[in-house]
Amino acid sequence: MHKLALRKPDGRSLWLYARDPLPDGLIAPSPSLTPHAPNAHLRWHPLRGEWVAYATHRQQRTYLPPAEYNPLAPTVDPGAPTEVPAGPWDVAVFPNLFPTLAMTAHDPPALAVPTAPATGTCEVVVFTPDARASLGQLPLWHLELVIEVWADRYRELAREDAIKYVFPFENRGVEVGVTLHHPHGQLYAYPFVPPVPARELEQQRLHYERHGRGLLETMIAGELAEQVRVIYSGPRAVAFMPICARYSYEVWVAPLQPAPSLAALDAEQRHDLARALKIVLLKFDGLWNKPFPYILAIHQAPTDGAAHPEAHVHVELYPAYRMPGRLKYLAGSEVGAGVFTADTVPEEKVRELQAVAVHVDG
Amino acid sequence: MHKLALRKPDGRSLWLYARDPLPDGLIAPSPSLTPHAPNAHLRWHPLRGEWVAYATHRQQRTYLPPAEYNPLAPTVDPGAPTEVPAGPWDVAVFPNLFPTLAMTAHDPPALAVPTAPATGTCEVVVFTPDARASLGQLPLWHLELVIEVWADRYRELAREDAIKYVFPFENRGVEVGVTLHHPHGQLYAYPFVPPVPARELEQQRLHYERHGRGLLETMIAGELAEQVRVIYSGPRAVAFMPICARYSYEVWVAPLQPAPSLAALDAEQRHDLARALKIVLLKFDGLWNKPFPYILAIHQAPTDGAAHPEAHVHVELYPAYRMPGRLKYLAGSEVGAGVFTADTVPEEKVRELQAVAVHVDG
Repeated sequence: MHKLALRKPDGRSLWLYARDPLPDGLIAPSPSLTPHAPNAHLRWHPLRGEWVAYATHRQQRTYLPPAEYNPLAPTVDPGAPTEVPAGPWDVAVFPNLFPTLAMTAHDPPALAVPTAPATGTCEVVVFTPDARASLGQLPLWHLELVIEVWADRYRELAREDAIKYVFPFENRGVEVGVTLHHPHGQLYAYPFVPPVPARELEQQRLHYERHGRGLLETMIAGELAEQVRVIYSGPRAVAFMPICARYSYEVWVAPLQPAPSLAALDAEQRHDLARALKIVLLKFDGLWNKPFPYILAIHQAPTDGAAHPEAHVHVELYPAYRMPGRLKYLAGSEVGAGVFTADTVPEEKVRELQAVAVHVDG
Repeated sequence: MHKLALRKPDGRSLWLYARDPLPDGLIAPSPSLTPHAPNAHLRWHPLRGEWVAYATHRQQRTYLPPAEYNPLAPTVDPGAPTEVPAGPWDVAVFPNLFPTLAMTAHDPPALAVPTAPATGTCEVVVFTPDARASLGQLPLWHLELVIEVWADRYRELAREDAIKYVFPFENRGVEVGVTLHHPHGQLYAYPFVPPVPARELEQQRLHYERHGRGLLETMIAGELAEQVRVIYSGPRAVAFMPICARYSYEVWVAPLQPAPSLAALDAEQRHDLARALKIVLLKFDGLWNKPFPYILAIHQAPTDGAAHPEAHVHVELYPAYRMPGRLKYLAGSEVGAGVFTADTVPEEKVRELQAVAVHVDG
């Protein structure tokens, strides 16, 4: 993997990644020339016991591009700069122009609840210069490169004392609120371990202490023994519908051997994880022969300086649909009580995904 | 309040509530004559440490009414029975025809994770026989009656040993997945304390132990002292945008004095709570002069037999929109990490609701 770190005219970073060496002379464009110094804050939610982020500067967006304008496509006309240059890069990463979390955050307001600067980063991960591609359609080597990029950002951000958790994710489809169709994900780096991974880590820790073995490792061993909900079983990675799936088409993708983060994977693990992920994403799109909207969330070890033998990096995919044309709404029971209700069981739904034929080269 | 308990032909209960006495001879209709014995199960989600409910019989709905058919309207033609009879009732409650939770649940499957019968109830609460009304448009006495009905169901369900938590809620609007527009809410009774109220109760318990005073009581005192985010301040109840609002127009409504549940309120508290809620709901609809979609969630004490001095019943309202035409999507950060990000602060948004003039009689 080759990497080039550039600086945008507004002060933001741009990292370009490529399989082949990158040429000299690439310049980082920006649709904005205003110096970038976002300042959001966190408030403590006493009743839920969690932080909430407030970024009012996001309202003040002066940047209103025309509908056809794609800020994630390579700049063609230097008079209309996008976020990324033309050039032979494969993956690009830069801080969001209107982020919630930023390293520049300072002086939070004094309120009746604890407050803190919204320290961290909100980065955009452009998966490819090709606006018509998708994560699952990328060649296997390119998907491996995306995983290497996520790992590289994990390693870099882990060096920041203020950052405790690195969270790569993708929101795909208008159904989950995406308006920009260029294939891209995001990466949030939080100054605390967020509630959902904190809860998972706590369950993993308890299991590890009791059994001397990872919880996800144990679940994977069970899935491989049972062979009912497995979608892909390779030498280093596995994809399956979890026995406790909350979404009708929920799938988890993980390395077979416990590894705390993507940064801890070797080339063989990364290769097989990319294959597992690609197979799932192609099966999603093949299920109804249309792009399948989902949230992709990667859970890994916190970057809090402690060892996390309990953590086992994995990808959780939450598809938006429960049947063709029927969205899964998060309503009263899910949002107000935290209890998911499913009309289906994974033992049945997995057969639909198992039946979708896909072809993966390499 | 007058109450009449009836039995539907398929075995389900129907409770009719009214301000005035109900006549003899009312008969409980049902669109289904099949004996009602739903059987869903729970599976333990090891990684999240929570139960997930699976109700596959919900797929087997043979009941496909025409689009114009309103099962929550009073039966007009006995040949086309709805869920409720014609008659002078004001509020009706009955178990959902295809519930997730039911007292009949039994023999859960044996799986690699713990399972349990999905014991409990999923009840429909029809707010009024008038299909064109809304919760906020009901006369004040009628809204008080709805609160009395929620309290009555709380008391009744609390008697069931298997039921640990009673959760009334309303999903309003197609934006939160509602397809039936007749004004109605739901009430789920769970065989465990669900994760969201469990978390709130834990925070309340810690605060109560440290300070000898309720957490929500303390927050309300702060809101009343500050007078910035208050929407209604009455003799017995208050409505305000919480300092830690996660949704742009999030509002909480609560009795001033701590009460563990709606069943613990006296008539004056109920009256003022109804007024506070009505004012908020009318302001919601008045904000953009259109029905405002929301999730309404009521958090109260568990029905686990223990005393809960830390609990303070309250209504949390989560509106779906963050600005006209712009929904708040729960995406990567909210769903995958559990961190809410807001573009607005409640100190600003509350002014919009404060500015909406509403009139409440009685």
